[in-house]
Amino acid sequence: MVASKQTSIRFAEVDKIASATLTVQTEGAGFLDVTAEVARFVAESRAYDGLLTLFLRHTSASLTIQEKADPAVRVDLLTALDHLAPESAAWTHDLEGPDDMPSHVKAMLTATSLQVPVVDRHLVLGTWQAIYLIEHRSLPHQRKIVLQFIGT
Amino acid sequence: MVASKQTSIRFAEVDKIASATLTVQTEGAGFLDVTAEVARFVAESRAYDGLLTLFLRHTSASLTIQEKADPAVRVDLLTALDHLAPESAAWTHDLEGPDDMPSHVKAMLTATSLQVPVVDRHLVLGTWQAIYLIEHRSLPHQRKIVLQFIGT
Amino acid sequence: MVASKQTSIRFAEVDKIASATLTVQTEGAGFLDVTAEVARFVAESRAYDGLLTLFLRHTSASLTIQEKADPAVRVDLLTALDHLAPESAAWTHDLEGPDDMPSHVKAMLTATSLQVPVVDRHLVLGTWQAIYLIEHRSLPHQRKIVLQFIGT
Repeated sequence: MVASKQTSIRFAEVDKIASATLTVQTEGAGFLDVTAEVARFVAESRAYDGLLTLFLRHTSASLTIQEKADPAVRVDLLTALDHLAPESAAWTHDLEGPDDMPSHVKAMLTATSLQVPVVDRHLVLGTWQAIYLIEHRSLPHQRKIVLQFIGT
Repeated sequence: MVASKQTSIRFAEVDKIASATLTVQTEGAGFLDVTAEVARFVAESRAYDGLLTLFLRHTSASLTIQEKADPAVRVDLLTALDHLAPESAAWTHDLEGPDDMPSHVKAMLTATSLQVPVVDRHLVLGTWQAIYLIEHRSLPHQRKIVLQFIGT
Repeated sequence: MVASKQTSIRFAEVDKIASATLTVQTEGAGFLDVTAEVARFVAESRAYDGLLTLFLRHTSASLTIQEKADPAVRVDLLTALDHLAPESAAWTHDLEGPDDMPSHVKAMLTATSLQVPVVDRHLVLGTWQAIYLIEHRSLPHQRKIVLQFIGT
């Protein structure tokens, strides 16, 4: 048995779904913090308790929840992804540029859809967590994220 | 602040859950496009707005949403996974064959559960996205995916 | 077309959300099986049909669903993660110790949120699947997992 304890369970009724599409402009490869945009959607949806889903409609960018305190963390995360999917590898799919196939690999290794519970009107992110879109392509792109809240 | 814009929010009531199990037959290591099967489940569930979840009941296969246009992308994705979890590494767990432990690693690095929002009766997949089961074992296997829709 | 078949669809009404926070104590780097704790939450929530979400409020630990039969699998999974994010790499972010930045990379490559459908009162885990928290830091930590069920 794991050493663990659980809070009392909070119950609520489910009565609505709210959906919207967030379009963001990236500036080339890197992390883009979308936490404020997601929190605004939660507020506008008058969400109390429920589940927030982010779904990215692209395959050469992705989503992750990561440390927001030290920007050096994101630099190292990009370096790690570059090592795991180097442009220098002998990719078969190379018509769209040397950064395209590594982008697909990086997207596969991170997330296309993410969920964050909402409890008592707030996303339950930890103190050091932020929600990021990771642009894997070298050039700037316009990216669409579908936001959906199910709850009360 | 991120350069971003959001559509107006679409609201709907939540009233049902639909669950089913999809069994697919793989032909050995490779990508299997299950998008049509998932779309059929969404249609049969008379889903309008809500959240579609796929859950794979196995640990040596996994799920991903990836580029469907060029088949070479999937070839390269398999190559990338092979490099990240090579059969030639000195694995401790080797009773089930040299392809078994790499399969578990590949499953851990990709996804066991995936979510796709449904808006106005349609999965909100991007133009180039398809939903794939990735078989990591060398031999064909029968795999079970639980499909679940929550919404209206 | 994929060789596939689907069960008949099971329908249910949606009427509640149950949320709680599970706090677990890790013993340093390694896998911690939290399946029993999650199943207890499902039972206490009187969950019949719906979606169970786990959300980890940390960025140097993560969640995964993996093989529970042979403990050697988890040993090899840790080894694989160590190879993908070695302490010996030249990380920029090194103020919190040599195991901190590799922990963030490992978290990015696995999962911060996980979903498991509940059908007929049971998590639909496969025969060999268990839900694990992976502690990536060397020292013991207290970790918080938000559990949320949406359904009936």
